[in-house]
Amino acid sequence: MARTSSHATGLRVQLPPLCFLFQAAIIILFSFFVRYNHETDSSLWHRSNHSDMDNDFYFRYPSFQDVHTMIFIGFGFLMTFLQRYGFSSIGFNFLLSAFSLQWSTLVQGFFHSFHGGKIYIGVESMINADFCTGAVLISFGAVLGKTSPVQLLLMSLLEVTLFGVNEFILLNLLGVKDAGGSMTIHTFGAYFGLVLSRVLYRSHLDKSKHREGSVYHSDLFAMIGTIFLWIFWPSFNSAPTNTGDGQHRTALNTYYSLGASTLSTFALSALLSREGKLDMVHIQNAALAGGVVVGTSGEMMITPFGALMAGFLAGIISTLGYKFLMPILESKFKVQDTCGVHNLHGMPGVLGALLGALVAGLATHQTYGDGLKSVFPLIAEGHRNATSQAVYQLFGLFVTLVLASLGGGIGGLLLRLPCLNSPPDSQCYEDQIYWEVPLEHEDEVQEHLRSEDTETQA
Amino acid sequence: MARTSSHATGLRVQLPPLCFLFQAAIIILFSFFVRYNHETDSSLWHRSNHSDMDNDFYFRYPSFQDVHTMIFIGFGFLMTFLQRYGFSSIGFNFLLSAFSLQWSTLVQGFFHSFHGGKIYIGVESMINADFCTGAVLISFGAVLGKTSPVQLLLMSLLEVTLFGVNEFILLNLLGVKDAGGSMTIHTFGAYFGLVLSRVLYRSHLDKSKHREGSVYHSDLFAMIGTIFLWIFWPSFNSAPTNTGDGQHRTALNTYYSLGASTLSTFALSALLSREGKLDMVHIQNAALAGGVVVGTSGEMMITPFGALMAGFLAGIISTLGYKFLMPILESKFKVQDTCGVHNLHGMPGVLGALLGALVAGLATHQTYGDGLKSVFPLIAEGHRNATSQAVYQLFGLFVTLVLASLGGGIGGLLLRLPCLNSPPDSQCYEDQIYWEVPLEHEDEVQEHLRSEDTETQA
Amino acid sequence: MARTSSHATGLRVQLPPLCFLFQAAIIILFSFFVRYNHETDSSLWHRSNHSDMDNDFYFRYPSFQDVHTMIFIGFGFLMTFLQRYGFSSIGFNFLLSAFSLQWSTLVQGFFHSFHGGKIYIGVESMINADFCTGAVLISFGAVLGKTSPVQLLLMSLLEVTLFGVNEFILLNLLGVKDAGGSMTIHTFGAYFGLVLSRVLYRSHLDKSKHREGSVYHSDLFAMIGTIFLWIFWPSFNSAPTNTGDGQHRTALNTYYSLGASTLSTFALSALLSREGKLDMVHIQNAALAGGVVVGTSGEMMITPFGALMAGFLAGIISTLGYKFLMPILESKFKVQDTCGVHNLHGMPGVLGALLGALVAGLATHQTYGDGLKSVFPLIAEGHRNATSQAVYQLFGLFVTLVLASLGGGIGGLLLRLPCLNSPPDSQCYEDQIYWEVPLEHEDEVQEHLRSEDTETQA
Repeated sequence: MARTSSHATGLRVQLPPLCFLFQAAIIILFSFFVRYNHETDSSLWHRSNHSDMDNDFYFRYPSFQDVHTMIFIGFGFLMTFLQRYGFSSIGFNFLLSAFSLQWSTLVQGFFHSFHGGKIYIGVESMINADFCTGAVLISFGAVLGKTSPVQLLLMSLLEVTLFGVNEFILLNLLGVKDAGGSMTIHTFGAYFGLVLSRVLYRSHLDKSKHREGSVYHSDLFAMIGTIFLWIFWPSFNSAPTNTGDGQHRTALNTYYSLGASTLSTFALSALLSREGKLDMVHIQNAALAGGVVVGTSGEMMITPFGALMAGFLAGIISTLGYKFLMPILESKFKVQDTCGVHNLHGMPGVLGALLGALVAGLATHQTYGDGLKSVFPLIAEGHRNATSQAVYQLFGLFVTLVLASLGGGIGGLLLRLPCLNSPPDSQCYEDQIYWEVPLEHEDEVQEHLRSEDTETQA
Repeated sequence: MARTSSHATGLRVQLPPLCFLFQAAIIILFSFFVRYNHETDSSLWHRSNHSDMDNDFYFRYPSFQDVHTMIFIGFGFLMTFLQRYGFSSIGFNFLLSAFSLQWSTLVQGFFHSFHGGKIYIGVESMINADFCTGAVLISFGAVLGKTSPVQLLLMSLLEVTLFGVNEFILLNLLGVKDAGGSMTIHTFGAYFGLVLSRVLYRSHLDKSKHREGSVYHSDLFAMIGTIFLWIFWPSFNSAPTNTGDGQHRTALNTYYSLGASTLSTFALSALLSREGKLDMVHIQNAALAGGVVVGTSGEMMITPFGALMAGFLAGIISTLGYKFLMPILESKFKVQDTCGVHNLHGMPGVLGALLGALVAGLATHQTYGDGLKSVFPLIAEGHRNATSQAVYQLFGLFVTLVLASLGGGIGGLLLRLPCLNSPPDSQCYEDQIYWEVPLEHEDEVQEHLRSEDTETQA
Repeated sequence: MARTSSHATGLRVQLPPLCFLFQAAIIILFSFFVRYNHETDSSLWHRSNHSDMDNDFYFRYPSFQDVHTMIFIGFGFLMTFLQRYGFSSIGFNFLLSAFSLQWSTLVQGFFHSFHGGKIYIGVESMINADFCTGAVLISFGAVLGKTSPVQLLLMSLLEVTLFGVNEFILLNLLGVKDAGGSMTIHTFGAYFGLVLSRVLYRSHLDKSKHREGSVYHSDLFAMIGTIFLWIFWPSFNSAPTNTGDGQHRTALNTYYSLGASTLSTFALSALLSREGKLDMVHIQNAALAGGVVVGTSGEMMITPFGALMAGFLAGIISTLGYKFLMPILESKFKVQDTCGVHNLHGMPGVLGALLGALVAGLATHQTYGDGLKSVFPLIAEGHRNATSQAVYQLFGLFVTLVLASLGGGIGGLLLRLPCLNSPPDSQCYEDQIYWEVPLEHEDEVQEHLRSEDTETQA
């Protein structure tokens, strides 16, 4: 039976060629287009006369490494909560990320650092590539357990591309600020994934219902993901902001916002259960909403008080979402959201975008001083006033929602192509169709005893 | 029965209001008192003329992130060694820390950075808040499994406040040096927790004895905590020290001290067991004593040799404590110390304080050169000689022990208030009274089979 | 029976004296020879007039911490894949590392920073000590489960010493470049361990065959190791390179190389299995080959395209090694390589050395500009041309292979001394002979019930 279902997913026939094709295409495109920038190229760096400490590496690499940990450990382990899908959660997270970071280097490079026919890369490219990968992993969370790695790679190909388009429109054309990606990463990734999950709706998913929950140890593995996401979120939001006060303030705001969202999540989780018991799903996810909600406004002068308020509300909204909205999403809107990305990334992302618009609308020369030209260059240079910046921010949110939904819809149709075998309804959330899964200890012992019996008899 | 016990702990009635109350109070106090400092405020930072690289963020943020990892991953997973208390260990660690870091920002702010009626915050506030949280988590270790989250939050409220008072007396009034907190964090946290545990003594705790040990996988989860604490301890001790040689030397000393304590722990662990087998409890805990013992002296010129000696002794004392002292503490002194914080933080902390006094008493202009004014400013400025600095160091230890004991006693009485339902003796070290615990895999499979049977029959 | 086997390994009689002896010798040698260098010594640092930011600590400490995480978390958890050897994997990894980093401080110090009879240490010593430890842990992987901790400590003593000799010959005498250690760490550690494993060949190891595999949870623990190794490898390769563009470029190259090796590993793993299922062994190990293969050339101008190509090939070679070469190594060459270090470190290390020679041979003034004197000082100063540098690189590989093989052979003979009891063939890969292993949960519950019965009866 296992063999049949593995055949059904077509891993051997489709995954290797797809990986080779993608990797070969990336290698060829890199050979034509990608070059070291002036901070990574030996000749270019030594041409100018500066201290090594001026190299952007020292301003951003420690933050990058925290982001990198979030992408591969944080997202990866967060999704291991499913009882029989740990290999796939951490493994496909690994595969999709390794692909997405390469592909997004090209896509983002074409949009952001394409000069004279070449893409120039350095630590900022690495941060941006990891950020884009974050959006892909959010979408992955919405379809976790119901899609094959082949489908997921195709999803990533499309999503990374559209992420680049959306980001280009927001940051370059509209002049929107969104350093920590409340819009470009969280809102985009969530609604892309949710619409895609809607298109892939399975009416008989209850056949795998018994595998959808966690077991004791899988919840502990998931907490590795949660905590690493939580502790390094200040680095995530601050990694791409302006050096000096910008990175410093963003990290600080995120730190306090997360503290508040954790307290409100614990409070609501105990309040909402019949017996006053805490729910691991809330703690693992909603406690993180404080990081999402200050993604746009974290670099702005939201004040420590504002950061706490934002986090507090985000934790509440997110927990309420898990408790009340998620069942409705499935029953009424036919959206099966495995990880509840709507609650952790969707709603807090939109809230973060609105908060960013509000704070941008309140920006004054007095509050920001000479730093205004770092945070809101278009206002500082007189091209806009604060109100119009706020309007652009809102428009950016609108564009993101439209592009994400369109992309998710197209992606869903693509993934429904008959040649892309997805796991049968009765085999969702199951590692065994994709992985050589070891026998459990007890089984092994018994098998060993059996083989000893056989030897004795022989 | 599960419902009764959950009711008994009063989680639903007490935890949500307490979390909301605490968070609301913190938000209001932040709105009145807490402001960005000159390195996180856009206007203030850009008013002066300096390079972005001068921002303290770049000197301390990487170390801060290591400390943050220790608090949330290190302490959190270290306490998951209990077989049925993993959710609570990592979950309450998360809750207490998220609360304590906010509350200590206010308490420490009032004592250390209160100017013109405002508290100014930046990365140093974050480090200090995490440090104070460390003390709370040490105390948590002493009462792990025997207290409800409501009790623990009240404990944190009190302990953070007293921590701030004690730290203010030591660092500001007495001019004591204690960068890595042998006294302020480890000694304070340990004796606060131990006295508190004494007041909460349970004579019938043996009813939960069968749940007090570990299982194979829980010991591996605990090792995640141990190793992260071990590897990042050099960052912990060096995070708040003077920039330049100060941070560098502190990290180096801690690195070697930990190496030595690990070897002496392995040696003693094998030596003390009847069969020569290693004990995971020793490895998980006593190997870390090398970090505690150089908490005070790590920034001083203890020499690499001195660091090794200190770590070597700390590992021995700590392992001996686990083997011989801990049973006596329970049987004679009625102190039930779940995690053995007396062995890891108490004794090594006191030893570290004594070592700090010794090394301070040996300080000379010759050894420290112009760096004397960084490490011992009062000696460099002629306000004290080395001997009197040593006496002040000892007095600081005395004050810490007194305040911690008093605080723990008061805290214990507070936590014994009848309205604060603590878990019954037979339900200690048990997640099920606080958490929705998933059915184990085997149970689920059987339930699924049963439900299929039912469907077939219907 | 357990007691007999524990006695057989002689842990109680041999491990404590050995640990004490080693630690005492190190402490004494430190007291005579080891001193703070000019960046960690208070007096020396403050003698000269520089900004604190110039302290090497700020250039290298964040990278060092990533390396430290790789050594203790990465290698440690990677080896927990065995079903009943998790305590030993993470525990002996801890012990060997804590010893090796101290001992290699002395050995490397004598060779690299011995001035006026003293060894001067700082963050670079810490990085180098961790690097040397990495080589020891690679060798540990080859003999995992088949050697006692006493044997392993003796192996480390020898290997650290020879590592220092080999590194001195390559870097100082031959002027070879090998920042990330394709030769000095990976090739050396792998072939030392493989030859050692050959000498320790067990013809009846099949008696422990049933314990050689993984279980579901142990594979997830191993993935913690894999992912931390993967994400921090850019810091590993860049930690010791030249500041500025050097560290920046090395990190970038490693990042992309790893991405490519991950894709080729997934592709080949699915391709090579009969049912198209992915194999955790490949994902846990071969995906990392991209980091090994750019160990030598990562700091050079290999171009982003070159980094991708190198990683792509390394992933393929490594996966093929696991699938086809490993069984042959055991059956034909009598090398039992528990973790497959030949596939992850051996072949990719040699490939990395060859790639380094190739890229060195292509070095031109035009490509490197004034940076040539950082990357290839001997070429820049006219002592060599690029071709002769390439020849020296190849000669360095040859020396490494010879010394590693000799060392492994001697080490193997040493470890076969009859007084060094190694675990019996039937007790390999088994924690129980070295550790107090807790009863499993079900056992405990039953025991508890039994004891309650007894009480009732009494």
